[in-house]
Amino acid sequence: MDIGSLVFDDMDQIDFTGPFEVLSRLPGSTYRVYGLTGAPVRDVRGLTITPDAAIADAPALDVLHVPGGRGIDVLMENEEVLAWLRKQSGNVVLSVCTGALLLGAAGLLAGRRATTHWASHHLLAEFGAEAVDQRVVVDGDWIFAAGVTSGIDGALTLAARLCGDEVAQGLQLYMEYAPEPPFQAGTPATAPAAVLARARADMAPVTERRLAVIGRIVSGHAQP
Amino acid sequence: MDIGSLVFDDMDQIDFTGPFEVLSRLPGSTYRVYGLTGAPVRDVRGLTITPDAAIADAPALDVLHVPGGRGIDVLMENEEVLAWLRKQSGNVVLSVCTGALLLGAAGLLAGRRATTHWASHHLLAEFGAEAVDQRVVVDGDWIFAAGVTSGIDGALTLAARLCGDEVAQGLQLYMEYAPEPPFQAGTPATAPAAVLARARADMAPVTERRLAVIGRIVSGHAQP
Repeated sequence: MDIGSLVFDDMDQIDFTGPFEVLSRLPGSTYRVYGLTGAPVRDVRGLTITPDAAIADAPALDVLHVPGGRGIDVLMENEEVLAWLRKQSGNVVLSVCTGALLLGAAGLLAGRRATTHWASHHLLAEFGAEAVDQRVVVDGDWIFAAGVTSGIDGALTLAARLCGDEVAQGLQLYMEYAPEPPFQAGTPATAPAAVLARARADMAPVTERRLAVIGRIVSGHAQP
Repeated sequence: MDIGSLVFDDMDQIDFTGPFEVLSRLPGSTYRVYGLTGAPVRDVRGLTITPDAAIADAPALDVLHVPGGRGIDVLMENEEVLAWLRKQSGNVVLSVCTGALLLGAAGLLAGRRATTHWASHHLLAEFGAEAVDQRVVVDGDWIFAAGVTSGIDGALTLAARLCGDEVAQGLQLYMEYAPEPPFQAGTPATAPAAVLARARADMAPVTERRLAVIGRIVSGHAQP
């Protein structure tokens, strides 16, 4: 079983490193990290990660993992990446956060039940997906995790499907994943009103720029 | 406020990358990643991360973050690292997973209430610490997180103490940290018996080797 994660500049590192913890430990599998080239990438806060290989050198993947983050705004119009996603998404896919929008830009979301980060959730419909308000959405062989840290829940769900419940539980125990967030502020529904208002204001320009990119892509899809 | 994370070969990457997500976003702070040298390190599953600088080039830190993982077994006898930890631990410390044992090897745990990964929890007493069975333990200006993913909870707890609840809640919302583990297997108390038995068997040789290292260190401490 060949498992591969895509990494890129300005991704959100934990969209990648959360699932890494699980995917790199699945029995009977080979796990590798792929960049646009073999050169190091920097996440949006500057973490420097070196991929194992370039996407052009990846074998046909049994499991494709696509993280998100600000960097998708550029990649959504990168034809090499979109073609690679189309080629590699025929089996099992784990989409984390706004990785879903990148898959959408590749034309792969039409008719799918999907989720993404709460601030971009309404954008899924632009790609013909049904936006589902769940932390983890299973749609056939595709698993969508919502924002950022939800990739850990998505990856454990995937581990159970690929290798059985006991393997997933063993990984959860190893990772001591029995979370106790110090606040109940992890979703728009639970965050204090002032915290949510500030987050929405911070996100607004990002979402606006993203909508403009998606508008160009969708109109291009319509005129092939 | 200068915040620094230590990274090293054979660490468990999410002990580092979980808190990175929080620590790299604290307002009014400078956050950097320090290696023994400036060269890339590889986590225990092969993730390649490049530090921002070498420990010798770090300023006096206001916040020191120490992850864990198998790599601590070597570092516990590395005098350069231990001296650096002694020098940098005078203010606020975030210990994640077996990072606590590394701090213990530096002679910094005596009399502290602490925690670490469940499989090494009993080893804290070797360094004179009081082992507390909590996911996050606050002991004065030190915060200890238990195993691996608990670093996220520890880092949010730290964020609230350093920058206030609203900042921590805003980060939690951004990270969409409202975990929904697919199983209740994240601690020895909740994992199915067969899963726990296998994990204990897998960990036993690691813990035995670690105990031998700690025995050497503690006898060295006793004969200065």
